[in-house]
Formats: sequence, C-alpha cells, structure tokens
Amino acid sequence: MLYDAIVIGAGFAGLTAARTLIERGKKVLLLEARDRVGGRVYTHHFADGTYIDLGGQWIGPTQDRIYALAKEMKVPVFATYNEGKKTIALNGKLKLYSGLIPKIDVASLLNIDYVLKRLDKLASRVVPDKPWQTPDARRLDSATLASFLDRHVWFGNARQVLEAGFDTVFACTPAEISILQALFYIKSGTNLNTLLNIENGAQQHRFEGGAQTVANRLSKCFEAHILLNSPVTHILQTETSVQVITRNAQTHTALRVIVAIPPALCARITYTPPLPPLRDQLTQRVPMGTVIKCYAIYPTPFWRANGHSGQVVADDAYHLQTTFDNSPPDASRGILMGFCLAHRARKLLALPPQERQHQIMQNFIAFFGKAAEKPLLYTEKCWAEEEWTRGCYTGMMPPGAWTNFTDALTRPVGRIHWAGTETAAVWNGYIEGAMQSGQRAAQEVMDMES
Amino acid sequence: MLYDAIVIGAGFAGLTAARTLIERGKKVLLLEARDRVGGRVYTHHFADGTYIDLGGQWIGPTQDRIYALAKEMKVPVFATYNEGKKTIALNGKLKLYSGLIPKIDVASLLNIDYVLKRLDKLASRVVPDKPWQTPDARRLDSATLASFLDRHVWFGNARQVLEAGFDTVFACTPAEISILQALFYIKSGTNLNTLLNIENGAQQHRFEGGAQTVANRLSKCFEAHILLNSPVTHILQTETSVQVITRNAQTHTALRVIVAIPPALCARITYTPPLPPLRDQLTQRVPMGTVIKCYAIYPTPFWRANGHSGQVVADDAYHLQTTFDNSPPDASRGILMGFCLAHRARKLLALPPQERQHQIMQNFIAFFGKAAEKPLLYTEKCWAEEEWTRGCYTGMMPPGAWTNFTDALTRPVGRIHWAGTETAAVWNGYIEGAMQSGQRAAQEVMDMES
Repeated sequence: MLYDAIVIGAGFAGLTAARTLIERGKKVLLLEARDRVGGRVYTHHFADGTYIDLGGQWIGPTQDRIYALAKEMKVPVFATYNEGKKTIALNGKLKLYSGLIPKIDVASLLNIDYVLKRLDKLASRVVPDKPWQTPDARRLDSATLASFLDRHVWFGNARQVLEAGFDTVFACTPAEISILQALFYIKSGTNLNTLLNIENGAQQHRFEGGAQTVANRLSKCFEAHILLNSPVTHILQTETSVQVITRNAQTHTALRVIVAIPPALCARITYTPPLPPLRDQLTQRVPMGTVIKCYAIYPTPFWRANGHSGQVVADDAYHLQTTFDNSPPDASRGILMGFCLAHRARKLLALPPQERQHQIMQNFIAFFGKAAEKPLLYTEKCWAEEEWTRGCYTGMMPPGAWTNFTDALTRPVGRIHWAGTETAAVWNGYIEGAMQSGQRAAQEVMDMES
Repeated sequence: MLYDAIVIGAGFAGLTAARTLIERGKKVLLLEARDRVGGRVYTHHFADGTYIDLGGQWIGPTQDRIYALAKEMKVPVFATYNEGKKTIALNGKLKLYSGLIPKIDVASLLNIDYVLKRLDKLASRVVPDKPWQTPDARRLDSATLASFLDRHVWFGNARQVLEAGFDTVFACTPAEISILQALFYIKSGTNLNTLLNIENGAQQHRFEGGAQTVANRLSKCFEAHILLNSPVTHILQTETSVQVITRNAQTHTALRVIVAIPPALCARITYTPPLPPLRDQLTQRVPMGTVIKCYAIYPTPFWRANGHSGQVVADDAYHLQTTFDNSPPDASRGILMGFCLAHRARKLLALPPQERQHQIMQNFIAFFGKAAEKPLLYTEKCWAEEEWTRGCYTGMMPPGAWTNFTDALTRPVGRIHWAGTETAAVWNGYIEGAMQSGQRAAQEVMDMES
C-alpha cells in the first residue's frame, strides 16, 4: 500500500492535516504514539460523569477554525465562569478586587499598563510568518523578555503581577525567551489583552464534555485511517517515496510525510538521510514549557456563593501563578484549577508526588479558605512527564533562534513537511494554531502534487 | 554477562571513565556509535602522511589530565605556531599587527580591555560545580551575553573584535547564552586571557600525529572492552540492573551505566522508566554550537616567509571569524585552518557544498593573498552534520537553564550516571573537561558500590 501521505501525530494539527487531505481524495494514514487522539488536548472523565481538561481547554475570539469545527462536531461551547471578585495574593496579603484591574498601588498599575501597551506596539510590527524579518529583529532576538522587564518595570508589585501573567501565557520564565519570541507570540494571538483575558480573550469559552470531545468526534470521521499506539522511530526517504517505521517495527510507505509533533519530539526520530544541519540544530533549541495543571474537585463551587470568581493571581510566595473556576456549566461540581508553571513547577518537580499535592493544596486553602480543605479529589497533570509531549503548552524559541535559524521550523525537507502549533503563524501555541499548521502542511503536500 | 558498568560514548569522557573503572578491577563495556574512538577529537590522515585535526586539537596550561595522558601515551606535544604578524580584517581593511593588541582605535582597545576585565572579575565569583549558587545567579542567568555587550561596549570596532573572539571561544552567538553561562565557561577555563590566547593559553600546544592519536592509543589499552558501531537506542532500568540496547538489537546488562555523550544526544535515547521531567526537559535545552572547521593545505607555509603568523581576526563581512597556522611541526606542508562559527556558519549551511567551499576560499585569498589561490586541497568539517555529535564545540546553557534546572545536568538517575565535557566543572567544553567528567562519573559508580 502506497499512501499519498502519512501524518505523524493525532493532535489537532495532525487531525486537521489528515482530514484536509482525505477530503481532497488522498490516501492518508495517520499514526499516533498514544492510545488516544487529541495530543495536548486531553479530557479525563470520572465515573460519576465529572470531567476535567488536563490539557488545552479554552478558545476565544478570532479562533475561527476551532469554533467552526466545534460547531460542526456538535460540541457546544459555554462561557468560562467569570463572575464575582478576584483575588490578588501579593507580599503575604490577599486582596479582593472586581473587574480587570487588581488592587495594587497606582504606580504599579500605571507601570503595568505602560509595559503591556509597549509590548503590544512592538508586537504589531512583527512579520508573523517570518519573525526574523521583523524590523530590528536581530536586536529583539538577542535579549530576553526578562531584560525587557528589567528595563521597563520599576515597581516590585508590577513585576510580580506581570510575571505571574506572562508565566501563565508562556509557561516558561521571561529569562527563557527572546523579546522577539514574546512579540511574535503576542502578535500571533492578536495582542496581550486578548491573550490575558477571559471575556473577549483567549480564555472566553470552554467545551461541553471537555475539549478532547472535538478531537474524538473529528477522528471518528476517518477512523479507519488512524493507527494508535504507533510511535514513529525512523523516517527514511528515497528518491520516490518515504518509509515510516514505528516502534512495533511496522513499515508504512507514502509519497509525502507530515510530521505534526513538537520540534523537541521531532529531534527524537531517526532520519535517513539525516536532516540538514540547520533543521537538526533547530530541534535542539525549541524546548517545551513546564506546566503542572492542578485540580481540586468539590461537591459545589462554594466560592461562587461568596461572590468569588475562583480567579487568583499570586506572587512568587505561592506555587500557583493563577487559578480559575473550571466547574461544569451546570455547576454540578465545584472545580478549581491552578496553574503551577515555569520555575515554580520546576521546584515542585523535585518533590515526591504526595508532598507536591500537599503543597498545592495549601495554596488552594490559602486562596479559598477552610472550605477548600477537603476536596472530593485532588489530581494533577504534569506535562513534562508525558513521553509524547515532554512539556506544555508549547515549544518556545530561545534568544537567537529566530534570527539564526529563520525558516528551519517550517521549510520542508525533501518529502517531509512540518506541522504542529509551534509552526503556526496565527495563534501559535494554541489549538487554533495547530489547526492552521495542519491546513498549511496539507496545502504544501497538495501543491507538490500539482 | 553482567558488567559492573557500561559506558556509552568513547570520546575522552567515556574513555577516561572506562579506564578508571577497569584499573580498579571492574568489568566494563564501552559502547561507541561510530566506527572509531575519540568523539569530537578526530584526526584525518592523508595518504602522503599529512594529517589534520577536524575536531579538538589544542591543549594549554592547567589542563593537567590531558598533558599527563599524552605523555603516558607517548604522544609528543608541540607549540602552536605563533610567530610573526597577525591580521585584523575590519571595515573592509586588513591591518597587520604584532603582539596581542590588534591595530584598532585606542577607544575600542580600552573598551575591549574594560569588558574582558569586567567579565573576568564577575567570572571569578562563579561557583564552578554549582553555577546556580553563584551570587546574583538569577539576574546573571536571565540576560544574554549579547545584552551584557550592548551595555558595556560603546565602539563598533570593539564590538566586532569581541564578537569574533567570543564566537571563537563559544561557537555560538552572544545572544544564545546567558551571562551566567559565559561566566561559568570562563571560570571553568581559568579566565578570558587563557581562553583566548595561544601562549600560556588554551591554544598553546598541539599533538604530533593529531589529537586523536591520544584517544587511539588509550583505547588500545583496553581494546577488548570496546564495541564500535554500537549506537545505543534504549536504556532500561530494573530494580537490580540496567539493560542497554543498541541499534543492531544487542542487549548488554550492567549494574551501572555512564552516559558520556552530549545532553542533546542523551535526549535521543529512550529510557525505561522515563527520565524524571527535570532531566528530560534539561536535555531539550542544551543545544550544540555550530562550527565548520575549514582547511586549505599548501606545499609550504608561505605566509611564514612573509613574516605572518597565519592568524587572522575578521569582522562580520567575512565567513571566517579567525584563522590559525595548523601546519605540522616540521612545516612539511602549509596548513591554514579557519573557523566558520555560529551565525556565520548557519548562513553558509544553507549553501551547496561547492558554493560554500568557494566562499571560504575567497576568505583565505582575501587574508593571505594570491599565493593562497591554489591549495593542494581544500576540505572542511561541519560538526552539525555529524549524527553522533550534532554540533560543536559543546552544549551550551541558554538563559534560564542553570537557575531553573540546577543539578539536572549531573545528578544520577537511579543507576544512570552522566559524563561528557558539558558536565565538567573545570575546562567545560574542552578535552580536559571531558576527562574530568569521566573521572567524576567513575568515582560516583565506585562510591555506589562501597
């Protein structure tokens, strides 16, 4: 059997690429390492019907592809809970506030506003599909986002709030990415307000039944084309075709391959002939972020009764940068979700699971009081422990990578094409970006044939 | 057969670890992916007896382990050719100079001196085996070396000369490493003068017959313990032992394993159980540098007759940052070696080999005149193309890595220990560091047994 295309990875990028090609009448095989589809979108269902999204869960305005797909797959979306007061935990004190502006000193507020506006203005100049061609790219790529903050943030409270926010957006510390990467990411997701907000922002909607429901239903449309439990170990190109070899020693052959997994995982496949050095070296340089997604599940969302939104932003004294109300739309359970990210996650990773759980629960109790003490269940997902992802949310370009390696992230290598949200020009790092990358790679394959 | 230890990688780290354990009476197997030992030290011999070091080639003061080993293996060292004038190629002009101080404007010279002294002073405070415990480590780790230069270099000529020098030391751009990584590297190699200089510096001596001769002779001492052509694909730990599986499907079992390859290659082995997330994520974050080592071979070292040292430092208008006289000690051939590094190498990697060669030769001709036009032979080694190295000289910690991942580079994982020059506290990135790391890992294994 000679396929027109083999797609590697059944996350939203691979599913979209496969579907696009199948709809054009192509013979397609989709290989997935895990025993499920969805990739970084992963919903866990409990016996009592409660579900939690352990991976990607939100969508928002301008993410037209995923809204359309959810509609088509008949998966209703609902508004993320966003009523009541929020808490800011700063300098050992918890303060409640309403609206978008946390209760901190005016100087810090002005400083935060200045920094967000300045980053948005710089981001507006980024060339989204060619960040290395952005005006002044080399300078912006040679300094870290942390250096930018050192220069433009003058108040400790502003720094703490901005870092908690940026950690929540990037899932790595501001030291790890260049200013150019930060600007590119902001531009690809419209602007910083969009990235940070629930209402009219990237956190606006959730999916009934969880985000993986969309991937599951999509995969049913071409189930016969999908092989699960098939991690790819080797890709071998010849003059006329490509052989893809899986860990269980199966060989599949196609005219083209779309690799729809993160660059750090691309590095772990053996290629014959070897990849060009620029491509190989790039894959050494796009590390995954660090996320522990922490869940405490209660009989009811008790915080709502107290007029609280479930939303907290916390400084370095806590393990969780931010929390959200992740209860189901009918509030049949009360679910708090906390993000433990970047350096805070790395500290906790060194602890045994029991101790980690204890530390995180202490945070939930500090934020939400005695009522938070006894959840029905505590659970967490550490994405750095997942063999087939190795971190979340996404792969991030460190300083120097964009300007030194330019299009190595997306440029096809012979019969191999690259997809995955890391390669997206819009909504990079998000479900929407994954879908855009899948469409783009499928188009590349179709263009090659014509 | 149950070995006391399996060592993976027969570079200087693995050879040293294996030898140390064998001398203590341990049963050892050394597995090497290539068909030769030496790793990043690789000497090519031509039919006429000429040899060139395509990889590591120099040693210098305080590198006591490799000097002692060379002596023991009866490989004489000789002084790197360092007589005559040098050339600085700047702003479209070539200028000759004598001694250590290039002929550029006094302001730039003072600026260069200031920057080197300042970096040396900061480097003196680094804790070499625990860089993350250096005073002010988080701040130093959150900005790039490029940002440091932006702040402290005020003259264009100073910047060009410093960058050519730093590129030659680090093999990556100043954008790619944190200030802390630069300081750690400087401290581990004594100071900047030592790293940059030939006389009394890291480039002081070469090996008769090439540097690989030392590795070859060392390997002869325990040849029966070495398996070549055996790339490791899988390391499987049980309660009582470790299984190491090679690409040709052989399984070897030992009580302990020492993995003596760069972190970026460690990432490409499959581990059962999976590595702890901190270790796995670290291996996504230690990319190899980019080096094309370029050779033009002539009947005689004609530049010497003109009173020239063969040494050039060139600005961004050229592909080569620096050149050296790499002729054999008897000057039976004239050999020019040029380093094409970091961003300059990445630009050339996109070109076809013939065009690359043409461009590099134009540089040699620009530096050494018409006499350089017709070499007996031009050849080059691009280390990013080597499957079992993936770049040179070494793996470099980007911003945020040291302070976020701390001891993940060296901390043993169950029965697995880590060696390789990237893990060295002294002469990190050099042959000497590789040997230190091999001794340290061997000691860890012996301590475990007692």
